Amino acid sequence: MSGTLTVVGLGPGDPCYLTSDADDALRAAEAVYGYKPYLDRVPIHSMQVHYPSDNREEGTRAAAAIEHAVRGANVAVVSGGDPGVFAMGAAVCEAIERGPEAWRKLDVAFVPGITAMLAVAARVGAPLGHDFCALSLSDNLKPWDLIERRLDAAAGAGFVIALYNPVSRARRWQLGRAFERLRQHLPPATPVVFGRAVGRLGESVSVVTLAAADKSPADMATLIIVGSRETRIVERPGRSPLVYTPRAAVEVSA
Amino acid sequence: MSGTLTVVGLGPGDPCYLTSDADDALRAAEAVYGYKPYLDRVPIHSMQVHYPSDNREEGTRAAAAIEHAVRGANVAVVSGGDPGVFAMGAAVCEAIERGPEAWRKLDVAFVPGITAMLAVAARVGAPLGHDFCALSLSDNLKPWDLIERRLDAAAGAGFVIALYNPVSRARRWQLGRAFERLRQHLPPATPVVFGRAVGRLGESVSVVTLAAADKSPADMATLIIVGSRETRIVERPGRSPLVYTPRAAVEVSA
Repeated sequence: MSGTLTVVGLGPGDPCYLTSDADDALRAAEAVYGYKPYLDRVPIHSMQVHYPSDNREEGTRAAAAIEHAVRGANVAVVSGGDPGVFAMGAAVCEAIERGPEAWRKLDVAFVPGITAMLAVAARVGAPLGHDFCALSLSDNLKPWDLIERRLDAAAGAGFVIALYNPVSRARRWQLGRAFERLRQHLPPATPVVFGRAVGRLGESVSVVTLAAADKSPADMATLIIVGSRETRIVERPGRSPLVYTPRAAVEVSA
Repeated sequence: MSGTLTVVGLGPGDPCYLTSDADDALRAAEAVYGYKPYLDRVPIHSMQVHYPSDNREEGTRAAAAIEHAVRGANVAVVSGGDPGVFAMGAAVCEAIERGPEAWRKLDVAFVPGITAMLAVAARVGAPLGHDFCALSLSDNLKPWDLIERRLDAAAGAGFVIALYNPVSRARRWQLGRAFERLRQHLPPATPVVFGRAVGRLGESVSVVTLAAADKSPADMATLIIVGSRETRIVERPGRSPLVYTPRAAVEVSA
């Protein structure tokens, strides 16, 4: 008898971002798989076993969780943010496509979560208030020239851009090159939001200009939102500024 | 004494998608403003007053809620999905920017929610598993030629595309024109996901090809995800197919 596999989005980190659907799925699971820092956020419910693994082991983790479910258990795989955005959702689908025929018969479900760009945007207002894109800056899984082409296309056409995975220990120069590229399309005063560890311990958020963006520190826990020509900053006395992109975009019609 | 304004994302509809942060904000509010169908989803807590309004009244609604909070109340404004994605978040920021100086002193917070594209994507797998964009097809607030330029840019550069507001009573031809445009960039077999009322009563989800997409019904409650050249369909015996975009994008590097 086959079990079930549920791929669960934990949101940014703090349990206050968990949906009740995600909470129910975690309580119902007999086994929970995940990257260790994400798994550490999940309370171990009675009779439940946790299987932590390292980063960059998505494929192996997905296969182990699927195999466990196929043998009859109710298994959960956890993902930070939303499982469908640069996360375990695609890894599980890939494993099922490549795996043995029996894996395609498995009952699989995906539970959405608050992805990082929504959490960071909410901290400053509504920078994603109009057309936007989400782009991973990691060139581990795609060539750098494709990333540059996508930066050109998105900035040139007026999309606000959320940059996932801007920096890692092995990828140091990519973010600077991305800003350089974006400056060819966007004015120096374009607002850029840096959100680090938003929704968990050590959170920091800053709003800078594209001209000064290179000076802001970024790491693996940072998500960056680069505004469009339409994105506005509203200064407020005694409060942090609001950043938003208006719903109307008449100005760029020329 | 000034109160507070919290802009709250309700997610797709069913309370199972509500985060506990959003639930807390709704319980703490003395007054709740929103488009009537969204407000109808929120239980009226003790001593709380609800102020429903019509669609297309975002500006007026935002101003009324801000003014109410400035007078000293704890006010919530509700939004379907995430308030920062084509929703009330930008309307509130706009109103604050244009309003009297006192409005800038108000304590304003934004509580993120599960936006429609994440809910629809989760129903079929992980179509947003790699770089993607979110584009509103409504030409009420931007010119149609800008929408076409953005469709060209996004599809040409290999972004998966989530189409918000594909159709309304007054906008009938736009979606067909968008598919026509996308067929100039993408193969006929490109997967297209139609999600209607996902996460609430009357939900329906279908997966078709870009070639056949015009035959699928769509309305104001529909969100559409158009795959990239990388997006894959995994057929499963006795189950609906999985749709996902792989994490690696080496094939399109040429």
